[in-house]
Amino acid sequence: MFAGLTSARDRRISDTARVEAFSDGVFAIAITLLVLEIHVPDAVEIHDAGGLVPALLPLWPAFLSYLASFLTIGVIWLNHHRVFTVIVKVDRVLNWWNLMLLLAVAFIPFPNALVAQTLPEGIQSADARSAAVIYGVVFTLATVPWVFIWLHVRRRPELVGHQVSASRWRTYIRRPLIGMGIYAVSAVLGYFLPLPVVILYIALAVFFAL
Amino acid sequence: MFAGLTSARDRRISDTARVEAFSDGVFAIAITLLVLEIHVPDAVEIHDAGGLVPALLPLWPAFLSYLASFLTIGVIWLNHHRVFTVIVKVDRVLNWWNLMLLLAVAFIPFPNALVAQTLPEGIQSADARSAAVIYGVVFTLATVPWVFIWLHVRRRPELVGHQVSASRWRTYIRRPLIGMGIYAVSAVLGYFLPLPVVILYIALAVFFAL
Amino acid sequence: MFAGLTSARDRRISDTARVEAFSDGVFAIAITLLVLEIHVPDAVEIHDAGGLVPALLPLWPAFLSYLASFLTIGVIWLNHHRVFTVIVKVDRVLNWWNLMLLLAVAFIPFPNALVAQTLPEGIQSADARSAAVIYGVVFTLATVPWVFIWLHVRRRPELVGHQVSASRWRTYIRRPLIGMGIYAVSAVLGYFLPLPVVILYIALAVFFAL
Amino acid sequence: MFAGLTSARDRRISDTARVEAFSDGVFAIAITLLVLEIHVPDAVEIHDAGGLVPALLPLWPAFLSYLASFLTIGVIWLNHHRVFTVIVKVDRVLNWWNLMLLLAVAFIPFPNALVAQTLPEGIQSADARSAAVIYGVVFTLATVPWVFIWLHVRRRPELVGHQVSASRWRTYIRRPLIGMGIYAVSAVLGYFLPLPVVILYIALAVFFAL
Repeated sequence: MFAGLTSARDRRISDTARVEAFSDGVFAIAITLLVLEIHVPDAVEIHDAGGLVPALLPLWPAFLSYLASFLTIGVIWLNHHRVFTVIVKVDRVLNWWNLMLLLAVAFIPFPNALVAQTLPEGIQSADARSAAVIYGVVFTLATVPWVFIWLHVRRRPELVGHQVSASRWRTYIRRPLIGMGIYAVSAVLGYFLPLPVVILYIALAVFFAL
Repeated sequence: MFAGLTSARDRRISDTARVEAFSDGVFAIAITLLVLEIHVPDAVEIHDAGGLVPALLPLWPAFLSYLASFLTIGVIWLNHHRVFTVIVKVDRVLNWWNLMLLLAVAFIPFPNALVAQTLPEGIQSADARSAAVIYGVVFTLATVPWVFIWLHVRRRPELVGHQVSASRWRTYIRRPLIGMGIYAVSAVLGYFLPLPVVILYIALAVFFAL
Repeated sequence: MFAGLTSARDRRISDTARVEAFSDGVFAIAITLLVLEIHVPDAVEIHDAGGLVPALLPLWPAFLSYLASFLTIGVIWLNHHRVFTVIVKVDRVLNWWNLMLLLAVAFIPFPNALVAQTLPEGIQSADARSAAVIYGVVFTLATVPWVFIWLHVRRRPELVGHQVSASRWRTYIRRPLIGMGIYAVSAVLGYFLPLPVVILYIALAVFFAL
Repeated sequence: MFAGLTSARDRRISDTARVEAFSDGVFAIAITLLVLEIHVPDAVEIHDAGGLVPALLPLWPAFLSYLASFLTIGVIWLNHHRVFTVIVKVDRVLNWWNLMLLLAVAFIPFPNALVAQTLPEGIQSADARSAAVIYGVVFTLATVPWVFIWLHVRRRPELVGHQVSASRWRTYIRRPLIGMGIYAVSAVLGYFLPLPVVILYIALAVFFAL
């Protein structure tokens, strides 16, 4: 048994507790930092707008993209939570793809800020279109690591605690591919319909969560 | 037993460890980010005010709303901690309502900043009134998910580790309803008495905690 | 045994896992946010200073207070870690004093920023003196909850996992009182010697840690 | 056995759970805060640049240093994760060196911002060279605590859960020394080739991770 532990250590397989803790931290911070991107109107802006409420109303795209980003990160966390009830051990390659997933998640506040910044210009402005495409591309990239995670785990079944059928593996790999397709199409759609696509992301997150 | 585990996985019930870890992260970040909303006076502002202390004194509403927001998030965390000693399993719906709770908590720094921004204008200014109402509405919204959490858990008693009496269920559901009522009334009161309502939130948090 | 669990729940005693997780989150965020208070010189400031290095040199007080705040929060965390190897259960009152401790810790970035903002004015300027006093007062306040935590735990010995002798209790309570005295004296000294006091905080943290 | 526990407590040895949780928090926050350093162009900057995309293109050094910092912190976390599968107990000295490691990690967003700020001036500008050197020095400093951690643990073998051979100890200590050498050379190289060195950090992180 001690030898087994040593050999597991040599092959650098370890359990998932710390990967989950570190990932939970990144998800929690990314989702909570989003609120800092909503601009608090200062005294001059409030005065010029004729009051606090009129100063807040033009910020509606920021609230909308806040909601879309919050729910999307929330759904990626839910997914992470479910995947790591199936995966019970991690190795270097799995750690790497998990880090790539966290890279995409931690980056979401940036395209989120671009959408919030450009949508008020006009919901069909060239900048709002560009921002919606970038937003969709980042969401699409966030689905890619899942495909590699499942492809890798299928080759290393000792990372999963129990027997998984061939059809089940196909399901695991197909799901993120479908997600990738949906978000890639949305990214293209964002060029033509920036505002409806942001609303679509909210709907997608509610759909994936329930 | 293995079959039981599989069927639990199929119905996507899992234990609460990661939900608690992720939620703890969001609570910890939201409560710690609040300090960034207190404006540090720069060299020009310190000079114009005639010194650091005179430059800090007009920031008292920011300190007051910092205290109210910190204690309110702290009390919501205490409540979350207590609820998840009763609830021992989570499913999709519970995860969703927990995410809605975190949405409200993560959003608190925004209305907090509005109150800190507008109270110095005058404790009866129209903007301070609007800010106090928005602040109260967000606190009210933060009580709503608890009602749905308890209604759902009552329908799925396997999420609770032990037998709960009918009267106990009613208590669980009534408590957040009472909280919702108190915060809704405070939100309305905020329109008439912005400053006393912020102080009321501090008193409510101390009362709920002890 | 089940009855015991129920009665413990009724008296709202629970184990310390989540309190530690939530506190670790607040400590980790407060200590990591400090870096955001160090101003990154912009293109104009770099140009006016005649280069990046000359633009960074006047920021030395910010680096010094960064180090003092980082190490002090680190030492408070080390202390929290040690205390919660002795305390094994939490109740409402203990949760409350722990929240008061986190309030002081989460607030540290603010006086830290005041010191970093005012020390460059001159190490004996009136503003640097005020900032050093405020900094010391916040550090002093951060020692107060420990006294109340130990006084409360002594009255509720079931929160501690093992027998504690009377002399041990006195040691537990005396230590934060000594810390409080040292930081209170430092706060007063800060009025006369702002810069040496910031260096003293670094030395104190190294001393308390080792 | 109880005596053993007490004596362990007296010598202040404790298990690694909270050190790992606190460290995970600092790593997660430092890695997620990096995105805040990427400047979101405002309406005026977008207009002056002739659109969102032309306004984003000059930010490429910020994206590059974001990637280098994210991956480097990710690799330090992976390393921390591996080291704490070998180390199973912590004492004061180990806690101190872990805190020094976290100090270096939490500081990375600052030199990262300096690189992002100065590289757009010109990839051979004097400021970009200075920034690349500072960046490399901070990465070098982040390798130092590992050497002291292993030297200390070798003297206190009870902190490791199992027998470690003399050659294994030498490997443990040699690895961070090699890392230190590589980053120190990179820091010097940064003076001559700021941009290639940032790309080198990305390559090094990918190499160390896989």
